Amino acid sequence: MTQAAIDPAKLDQMAEVIVRVGLNLQSGQDLIITASTDALPLLRPVVAAAYRAGAGVVTPILSDDAVTLALYEHGHDASFDKAPNWLYEAMGKAFGENVARLAIKGDNPMLLASQDPAKVARQGKANSIASKPASARITNFDINWNVTAYPSPAWAAQVFPDLPVDEAQLRLAEAVFAASRLNFPDPVAEWARHNAELRARTEWLNARSFHALRYRGPGTDLTLGLADGHAWKGGSSKARNGVTCNPNVPTEEVFTTPHAHRVDGTVRATKPLAYQGSLIEGIEVRFEAGRIVEAKASAGEAVFRELIATDEGAARLGEVALVPHSSPISQTGLLFYNTLFDENAASHIALGQCYSDCFDDSNLSADELARRGGNSSLIHVDWMIGSAEIDIDGLSSDGTATPVMRGGEWA
Amino acid sequence: MTQAAIDPAKLDQMAEVIVRVGLNLQSGQDLIITASTDALPLLRPVVAAAYRAGAGVVTPILSDDAVTLALYEHGHDASFDKAPNWLYEAMGKAFGENVARLAIKGDNPMLLASQDPAKVARQGKANSIASKPASARITNFDINWNVTAYPSPAWAAQVFPDLPVDEAQLRLAEAVFAASRLNFPDPVAEWARHNAELRARTEWLNARSFHALRYRGPGTDLTLGLADGHAWKGGSSKARNGVTCNPNVPTEEVFTTPHAHRVDGTVRATKPLAYQGSLIEGIEVRFEAGRIVEAKASAGEAVFRELIATDEGAARLGEVALVPHSSPISQTGLLFYNTLFDENAASHIALGQCYSDCFDDSNLSADELARRGGNSSLIHVDWMIGSAEIDIDGLSSDGTATPVMRGGEWA
Repeated sequence: MTQAAIDPAKLDQMAEVIVRVGLNLQSGQDLIITASTDALPLLRPVVAAAYRAGAGVVTPILSDDAVTLALYEHGHDASFDKAPNWLYEAMGKAFGENVARLAIKGDNPMLLASQDPAKVARQGKANSIASKPASARITNFDINWNVTAYPSPAWAAQVFPDLPVDEAQLRLAEAVFAASRLNFPDPVAEWARHNAELRARTEWLNARSFHALRYRGPGTDLTLGLADGHAWKGGSSKARNGVTCNPNVPTEEVFTTPHAHRVDGTVRATKPLAYQGSLIEGIEVRFEAGRIVEAKASAGEAVFRELIATDEGAARLGEVALVPHSSPISQTGLLFYNTLFDENAASHIALGQCYSDCFDDSNLSADELARRGGNSSLIHVDWMIGSAEIDIDGLSSDGTATPVMRGGEWA
Repeated sequence: MTQAAIDPAKLDQMAEVIVRVGLNLQSGQDLIITASTDALPLLRPVVAAAYRAGAGVVTPILSDDAVTLALYEHGHDASFDKAPNWLYEAMGKAFGENVARLAIKGDNPMLLASQDPAKVARQGKANSIASKPASARITNFDINWNVTAYPSPAWAAQVFPDLPVDEAQLRLAEAVFAASRLNFPDPVAEWARHNAELRARTEWLNARSFHALRYRGPGTDLTLGLADGHAWKGGSSKARNGVTCNPNVPTEEVFTTPHAHRVDGTVRATKPLAYQGSLIEGIEVRFEAGRIVEAKASAGEAVFRELIATDEGAARLGEVALVPHSSPISQTGLLFYNTLFDENAASHIALGQCYSDCFDDSNLSADELARRGGNSSLIHVDWMIGSAEIDIDGLSSDGTATPVMRGGEWA
């Protein structure tokens, strides 16, 4: 019996889209790829595509679920507060020297589900602190970068727990490839069309320069201030090194920076949040002056509380994103347990660090960023609040309301 | 039909020997593991064993044969002179901060056999130069380190080309585990006994403090001067960080530093040399005043010539090692295509960089090292010259000869 397997030609096509559209890798440019060993079947064609595109040196930095788990199963207590600083510092230095960056997700999103949430949080925080030299280069958009995903068996088994794993993988692969727009005669041309559509949305929003957004729906009545001089982004965007890339494949969102001190009201999550191997369900929070002052969850509440206690900025917002409920990813009806997909299935907000390039001036000092309402934190965690029952208005500074979304669709 | 597979209990045992005997990893000490993705089945239990031993953070840096090959198949010409300097610099910095180092070999040793030797040499040189900050910490023995191997299918298929691959893997695993002394009731105690035996050999050689060694056998008549104040080492040894470790598992050799300018005569290799994916066979060279002045090989001569032309020190010797022909690894009669095994099956010499701790004073300056005859180079390549037909005498400075080996055995 031959086991069903992902078509290698499809992986080659995915690799081309990642390298040409996602990264827009430049001739002679070096590339660092962080990936799970589960993602090797996509990593290999990506490396080949990168060299075909003229890459200098391509260096994979591979993680492995069993290695990660070994820490939790055998590690001494002190290890949970440690991280490989030397590696993150070096990656940060490389990004500072124009090395491009690709992340291929593919690990089991629920790997740490049965581990002690306090240890998961400590290890997450240690890695967030250690990785700052590298992650700051990404949030600052210094270089062209991309995050994508490989439909690994470990991930597929979470999304389709009732299917045999090879069938689950094929089903997930179908969804991933469709969302990545591979099912068009010319995927690269289709991405150009899609990017133009997202650009039209951002131009409409930027022209209106709303002071705040108001969300209404079941369990949600939220006024979310936007940062002073915020700029909406979406689809392809130009990094500070001059290269226009698509930081996410797939992507359906337009997003900007909220005001860290002007968010008030209640909001209820519309999808579970898969965070560092735990599933946080039924999140409901209340904001006052930008900060979460009440928080509960029907599952994983301890993990959520640890998360928002990471630092001062972890209980404030760093991103707001709009995604129509009719987006192709949303239409699959699947919970992907993977932010890259779930955040592109619904409007969302993110706790933590803001993107400094989501402003009309992309060279703001840290002080100026903060003064305009940009949040700073070790974390950046997206969290879904959109559904077919959500209405969103744009509020101008005089309080005038303009419909932005109705019933989860562009108004 | 169930495929034959390596017993997981044996891999756990191997992992314990690597961590306790090979590395002697200290509580709280961090560890970097370089390994091939082919070696994941051993890497995983090693990480678990390291955490059980109290490791701080264990960070694998994985290479992948398909990724390596992608450069040769798709890479632009300029890429062959490049390497990930940022990664090697960071590893060197980590080793400077007492992070231990493990290398697990397991890749296909003939991976690059059909690639352009000039490109293989350029890429090898680029990596040698780039990795100097890390490799210098190892040759200087700053920290406890170990090199070991996993009997991967890719490697086994080279050693047993006529067997089905799963059977080949089991045969190779048997040889690797036996050589690593796992077939004793208490492998750790057996390693202590073995180390004591190697120590007795080094003490005998150090007490005699020979001026030179003289090799005679078919195609070989070589007088190999030893560095001034050289010290023989073998088995376990104390690194500069104070930790006593076994840098190689397995190991059968005692070794020291030859004099870079006092090697004269001819020598014929007794085994093929597997170097960066090429097989170099029938090597015959003539030395004059320490330098190779004539070189030929019946196969792979171009690769060998590229190798010794790497830099000034690449045509001179940096290590001489004695291994009895009756060593357990030699008795397998196998060509392993892997230096760690082949060098422990026969007496050998190494082209290139010397080990600065193979001296009676382990804190010599670079100038003093060179003055005493220590060689320096970007490369360090071991090369087998021992067999059952080789006699070796130790020569004192007045020319008196003392039998050291007769017919490949300790005299």
